[in-house]
Order: sequence, then structure tokens, then C-alpha cells
Amino acid sequence: MSTYENVTLETTANVYFDGKCVSHTFHTADGTRKSAGVILPSKLTFGTAAPEVMDILTGSCTVTLDGVISTYAAGQSFSVPGDSSFDIEVAEAVSYVCHYG
Amino acid sequence: MSTYENVTLETTANVYFDGKCVSHTFHTADGTRKSAGVILPSKLTFGTAAPEVMDILTGSCTVTLDGVISTYAAGQSFSVPGDSSFDIEVAEAVSYVCHYG
Repeated sequence: MSTYENVTLETTANVYFDGKCVSHTFHTADGTRKSAGVILPSKLTFGTAAPEVMDILTGSCTVTLDGVISTYAAGQSFSVPGDSSFDIEVAEAVSYVCHYG
Repeated sequence: MSTYENVTLETTANVYFDGKCVSHTFHTADGTRKSAGVILPSKLTFGTAAPEVMDILTGSCTVTLDGVISTYAAGQSFSVPGDSSFDIEVAEAVSYVCHYG
């Protein structure tokens, strides 16, 4: 089971796309902000402000970024530049951790 | 903003009722298990194993427990006995923290 220890958890959920994506923000001991979330089966477009790294914990997804299509499953990660966007298609619910900056 | 400090966060989400309820389990420093979740607009029936206390952080809900109908809003809490169930109707997404035992 994937856990993060010694974190500060923001208990109010972030709800995106009518609930197709739900996350909780948390902060590690050094103050770094991350989020743990789930994307339910759907096809969504996410925009980024800061660069992001998405760790896929369960499920799988197909990501289109700059015209390149890649599939990621549990245990894999992908990076997204800041000020950009990516399309994600989820067939089986994806749990993820997102790292910013 | 409601936060819990110094917790161990389980990063894989719990998804119930086709995503109408999504939560993340966390453990406080003394090992107590809790969850932070959201219930999207819906009418659901939850069963309990252990007794539960639900803290409502955002939104509002109408709860029917043992035939008694009560409405709870942000800042309020309600208790549910173990080995029981309750109906909850959510019009506006509810973020909550659930305490067990």
C-alpha cells in the first residue's frame, strides 16, 4: 500500500469535472504540496500551471501530450510541463499522486 | 481550512457507489484511523461496521437514521452506531471527515 508519512492533510476535497476527478491536497514535512486523487472512467483535459509529475497507483490511463499518445499503468509515472495541458482517457479508475513544481 | 497534521496518508482512494463517494484513509500520530472524503449530489445508504462520527466540512446533507430525519451543514457532526446503516441525501457536494470506533 502506498503511504506518505508525517504529512499535513487538507481534509476538504478538490472536486473537478463534476466529480470525475477528486483529490485531497497534502503537504510533506518540508512543506512541499502534493495531491492524492482518483480519476474515474472518463476522457478529460487537464491544464497545468506548474510542471507536474503524476504517479499512477492503480488502474491505467492513456495520455495524449503534445500529440504523443502513451499508456500508463500502476507503478508508472509521467511528467507534464507547466503552462500546458494533456488529455487523459481512463477506462479503469486511476488513483494517483501528483507532484508539483 | 481544515487540516490534520502529522498523519500517514494512504494515497490509493476508496471509491464507493460508482464514485458518488470518494475518500482517502489516514492515520493520526497515535495510530487512529480516519478518512477524509466527499459525497457528490446523490441519495445513498451507508452501512457501518464500527460506530462512526461524521464531521461535515462543506455542503449540507439530510440524514435518516432510525427513522429520524436531520439536516447537517458545514461545521456540524453526527454519530452513527456500529452495525447499522443510514440514508444520506446530498444536494450540494459534502466534504467530510469520518472518525471510527
